[in-house]
Amino acid sequence: MALSTQPYKGARDFYPSDMRLRNYMFNTMRQVARSYGYEEYDAPVMEPIELYKAKTGDEIVNEQTYTFEDRGGRQVALRPEMTPTVSRLVAAKRQELGYPLRLFNIGPRWRYERQQRGRYREFFQCDIDIFGVETVDAELELIQLADKIMKSFGAKHSMYVIKLNSRQFINFFLADYLGLDEVQQTSVAKLVDRMNKLPESEFVAQLDALCTPTQREDGTVERLLAVLNAADMDALPEELKHHETLRQLQQVVEVLHGAGVDNVEFDSSLMRGFDYYTGIVFEVFDLHPDNNRSMFGGGRYDGLVGLFGVEPVPTVGFAMGDATLANFLEVHDLVPQLDSDVQLYVAVTGDVVQEAQKAVAELREEGVNVAVDISGKKLDKQLKTADKKGIPYVIVIGQQELASGQYSLKNLKTGEAETHSLARIASLLQDSRN
Amino acid sequence: MALSTQPYKGARDFYPSDMRLRNYMFNTMRQVARSYGYEEYDAPVMEPIELYKAKTGDEIVNEQTYTFEDRGGRQVALRPEMTPTVSRLVAAKRQELGYPLRLFNIGPRWRYERQQRGRYREFFQCDIDIFGVETVDAELELIQLADKIMKSFGAKHSMYVIKLNSRQFINFFLADYLGLDEVQQTSVAKLVDRMNKLPESEFVAQLDALCTPTQREDGTVERLLAVLNAADMDALPEELKHHETLRQLQQVVEVLHGAGVDNVEFDSSLMRGFDYYTGIVFEVFDLHPDNNRSMFGGGRYDGLVGLFGVEPVPTVGFAMGDATLANFLEVHDLVPQLDSDVQLYVAVTGDVVQEAQKAVAELREEGVNVAVDISGKKLDKQLKTADKKGIPYVIVIGQQELASGQYSLKNLKTGEAETHSLARIASLLQDSRN
Repeated sequence: MALSTQPYKGARDFYPSDMRLRNYMFNTMRQVARSYGYEEYDAPVMEPIELYKAKTGDEIVNEQTYTFEDRGGRQVALRPEMTPTVSRLVAAKRQELGYPLRLFNIGPRWRYERQQRGRYREFFQCDIDIFGVETVDAELELIQLADKIMKSFGAKHSMYVIKLNSRQFINFFLADYLGLDEVQQTSVAKLVDRMNKLPESEFVAQLDALCTPTQREDGTVERLLAVLNAADMDALPEELKHHETLRQLQQVVEVLHGAGVDNVEFDSSLMRGFDYYTGIVFEVFDLHPDNNRSMFGGGRYDGLVGLFGVEPVPTVGFAMGDATLANFLEVHDLVPQLDSDVQLYVAVTGDVVQEAQKAVAELREEGVNVAVDISGKKLDKQLKTADKKGIPYVIVIGQQELASGQYSLKNLKTGEAETHSLARIASLLQDSRN
Repeated sequence: MALSTQPYKGARDFYPSDMRLRNYMFNTMRQVARSYGYEEYDAPVMEPIELYKAKTGDEIVNEQTYTFEDRGGRQVALRPEMTPTVSRLVAAKRQELGYPLRLFNIGPRWRYERQQRGRYREFFQCDIDIFGVETVDAELELIQLADKIMKSFGAKHSMYVIKLNSRQFINFFLADYLGLDEVQQTSVAKLVDRMNKLPESEFVAQLDALCTPTQREDGTVERLLAVLNAADMDALPEELKHHETLRQLQQVVEVLHGAGVDNVEFDSSLMRGFDYYTGIVFEVFDLHPDNNRSMFGGGRYDGLVGLFGVEPVPTVGFAMGDATLANFLEVHDLVPQLDSDVQLYVAVTGDVVQEAQKAVAELREEGVNVAVDISGKKLDKQLKTADKKGIPYVIVIGQQELASGQYSLKNLKTGEAETHSLARIASLLQDSRN
């Protein structure tokens, strides 16, 4: 029986044109991260399952990790996220690393989730983290960096909003203000995370079901809704609006507005799923009506490094995924035309393949990407192949061209052709790239 | 109990300096592959285990794959190699793709092997393959490409040799010339693959044990040794030296010598472990006495695409790994000094972190990688941090510098300092990178 040609369910094959888009997205993130002094790291895709049990959150660990026993009896997981891993790396060299420590990683992560738009079981993320900074200067840098990445893709502030909240504020209003117990707090936070995906009546009914009779009588649901629906900090109930965390958030918003990131706003309904956040959290939302959703986010998690038995290191980080970003670029018409990396196709006539390879060596030395057609097919078929591959230029090499050293450079889009030496062709193609 | 900071056994953490070396190696391979018209692809790390049962070889599938059942009951493996996967991708779009089709992939693969120098359970490879070419022009291109990659690392031909053999020749001399049955052929091929790791007497004893009494009396072992020890084709026994495959190999060697790849030679003892090879095979060997080993290799495998129920596509490919290459670069003193990607460190005095971030925005726009010290530590500690990170240049930003627009640019290696505007600093740092 023939083997299946399908990729693993929920994962994707990346043919060259798909890979060009993925490389474009992550190379853009890499470049911006580097411009802020972040350095690339990597780590094994397998980690002991305990690493995630500590802080990642029950749903991911129990229902969504890829977990198995290796041939040596170790219980391992394919990393569902990078945060615990980077914390492990920092803990391992706690004393040797200089702080602030700025790190980024680009690579795959895995979660066994139901498939939906923008969500895959194998997905790619760029994680960007800063270690060793207690002040909000860390959050300010990362939010500006995230904004800069979005702008580098051509996004305008009208296309997305950056929402801010704080774990301390969330804890205060769920526990102290509303009087929810710990189990209720977790359930309510999860429900609020799905608020926009539920009809309002359904959302309210589920909230209601989470409350005790006494809480229901006390108007707990109504008070929660009032907080969630507050248009800004001023619209919050009196007992909440003077909480000290809000002053810090207000300051962050003001500095960011002053730095030109004027699409940042406080949002009391922003929860963030992971258990490890300890301070400010933020998320970037797509404002397009066809793709109105959270794209990526992050926040402060000061406790993770300490789980490895060393002194804790204050940390702020965020992660951007490939699929949600690709959706954003598509709906906002921001996907650039990404031509083949191959700049020149060489069709060969007669038995001169090796001579042709030798002749184009100088083009390759000059940095031109050149594919030689070594199929032995007829000339018209070779030219069709170049066209099929979307390669912009073609030359034909036969005995005559080799003897004269002159080659007709044809632009496959315009049909125009000019005759030049290979040295001249190298310089023309280099210019056309820049 | 504290979590362990150790990476998964047999796998590696890549801190920024490790990552710079890995990126240097694979970016060099990427650049050379692209110059020959190869395009990057990728695919899921998980594949159905059947994909490897078909042709990868029993040892890898039964003893070395990472295999598990996913939450949906699928039997999957973490890819131990890329060849079956790329064959699947080609089969899936057999008709749409233009040939010759040139593809490369860079990424992790996993094998549960015993750890040893240059061998890890998680390792990274660059796989480079050409599809759709029946003639040796495919082998010639790939061997030249492999040689070009080695040269791009600064390697000289005195440092490595490229050994050639052919599956047809191997089959002919094991089956027809020596009269070994299929089981014996497989066992002998595996034994020959380990020939250089065994004392000669042990090797001969094991060969002897594989033979029947009749074969032993017929001098089968001696005849095999004569073939394996033949210095070149001319030294082979008369019954073998006129085999047609040898003429093809001879022609390949001559063309490569003519193209300047003068370190290619025929080697009858080259076997290659994978079951899927069907024609010429080659391997690149390190000649350094401290690292005398096979580094990487490949060959022709015309049958794999056909396993997916489509017409077969002739294919030649090879794969280079990161660990063996790193060993090669080390023993030959070819590891370049790879500085931090961060070009400029900004120490901040006084409460002007946000003003400093704003000031260096123009440097970032110009493509300079700038890290601002937002730790709030004393100046001398900030300067020590820059030094610890190996960042070449530093400026200090305080009220005075912001007011004057003049900054003292200090070279941390030489200790020299010059005062400039930020625009001038941007251009100096850009020049120093080129």
